[in-house]
Amino acid sequence: MLDVPIGSAKASPERSDRSDRQTDATPPKNRRLALQARSQATEKALLDAGLAHFEAHGFEGLSMQAVAEYAGTSIGALYFRFGDREGFIQAVLERGFDQIRQDTDDLLAKVTTEHASPHEVINAFVDLAVRVQKKSHGVFRAVLQRALVDPKAWEPVGRLGNDATRRLVSALSRFPEVVAIPDWEARLMFGVYAARSAQFNAMYNSQAPLPKGHVAMVHVLYELIVSYLGLPPIGRVGQGAKDQGGRPRKLATSSRTRHTP
Amino acid sequence: MLDVPIGSAKASPERSDRSDRQTDATPPKNRRLALQARSQATEKALLDAGLAHFEAHGFEGLSMQAVAEYAGTSIGALYFRFGDREGFIQAVLERGFDQIRQDTDDLLAKVTTEHASPHEVINAFVDLAVRVQKKSHGVFRAVLQRALVDPKAWEPVGRLGNDATRRLVSALSRFPEVVAIPDWEARLMFGVYAARSAQFNAMYNSQAPLPKGHVAMVHVLYELIVSYLGLPPIGRVGQGAKDQGGRPRKLATSSRTRHTP
Repeated sequence: MLDVPIGSAKASPERSDRSDRQTDATPPKNRRLALQARSQATEKALLDAGLAHFEAHGFEGLSMQAVAEYAGTSIGALYFRFGDREGFIQAVLERGFDQIRQDTDDLLAKVTTEHASPHEVINAFVDLAVRVQKKSHGVFRAVLQRALVDPKAWEPVGRLGNDATRRLVSALSRFPEVVAIPDWEARLMFGVYAARSAQFNAMYNSQAPLPKGHVAMVHVLYELIVSYLGLPPIGRVGQGAKDQGGRPRKLATSSRTRHTP
Repeated sequence: MLDVPIGSAKASPERSDRSDRQTDATPPKNRRLALQARSQATEKALLDAGLAHFEAHGFEGLSMQAVAEYAGTSIGALYFRFGDREGFIQAVLERGFDQIRQDTDDLLAKVTTEHASPHEVINAFVDLAVRVQKKSHGVFRAVLQRALVDPKAWEPVGRLGNDATRRLVSALSRFPEVVAIPDWEARLMFGVYAARSAQFNAMYNSQAPLPKGHVAMVHVLYELIVSYLGLPPIGRVGQGAKDQGGRPRKLATSSRTRHTP
């Protein structure tokens, strides 16, 4: 299972400018470099604090005062760096989105090379997508709020989702049982999109008929993709649907043949 | 194909209070009734005008002045009736939602009784769901904007969606090939939810890998539901996968057997 450090966006107040004050006594050139470093550290601390607040309260509840306190700096420093509240929110969204992109990249690299069957690759991909969406829920929510006013705001998110799925497509192209399926690329693109939509909407639809627990949720979304793709279940392709212990494997069956004679 | 009058939310200015002004000369009792009727007609005209504006501009762009003009009444009448802009938006959302419920009811009645195979019932249901979501896009979008701040706002929409799918479940319970599928109710609930989510998100995600044309979109969503459900294709159950003209029927195949030997 992939190990995404959920909540790593938390700012650590130790990294704020207060701890850098000792550098004030150093010579001019070093001092300039130290000031730059301090400035960057402060900016990072402010953005991390903003991101943590975002995930907890959404951007409508974002208090500039609380962010400054959390980052261990002054509200003046916050306005000085980002102009106004909107500028700060924009910068936080960009940082949040960079982090989503980074998480996606890091984990896709694992997902696409480490697994022996297309079923395992797809399952690991879904696991990853669920984690990334959960971890950065606040950022997605904020971008969606903007996208409902101006659809352009969703473009980077939509593009990242499609790019990630295209990497899944490319990883699956080494499996003959996948490439034998007519339209498999298009079916995978849409199946993954539908699964991501189902999970995403469950974040605001409390009555969504999707299991809340991580493992069960991943399994349902995986099955949706695999059955729409029309991928024959593991039992048909390789090695039987049981693992060494004789228990049914979690990702063994797609719905496709469960009901066929 | 179902015939939803897209855009029926448009207010007709003739129905506004201006055309009722002649009743001012009638005797007291009739006059009171006429005034009540006029008041209701004005309210309806205002709400219809609000709904039409909503669908066109979203509620962030809703101008009270423009709504009053469109409904053929004064901005004073608008504030008198609804208190403030927020009160008006709330009333418009309620009216929009009533209309969604009514559209859903009317069309579900058709969908669930008029079709001979489960495939046709599911296809007609998807067709309906796509139309209702498209027609009331502005209302859904406005409710979603509120739900992103307070998830309670989505509850009536989530409930209506689940209720509609439960009626589909009930309509499909008369088909032996459906009830033979293990967990068919749960699979149908989730499959329909995923399909609706995929369509819904495509309304703000311009890069969604979902066809834009109505027929193609309905077909993809139908196939998603049927393949996840694990429903054997028409060819297996009834009468062959071709219609009288020898052309393949549009809803003939689920992905399930297309790739099985």
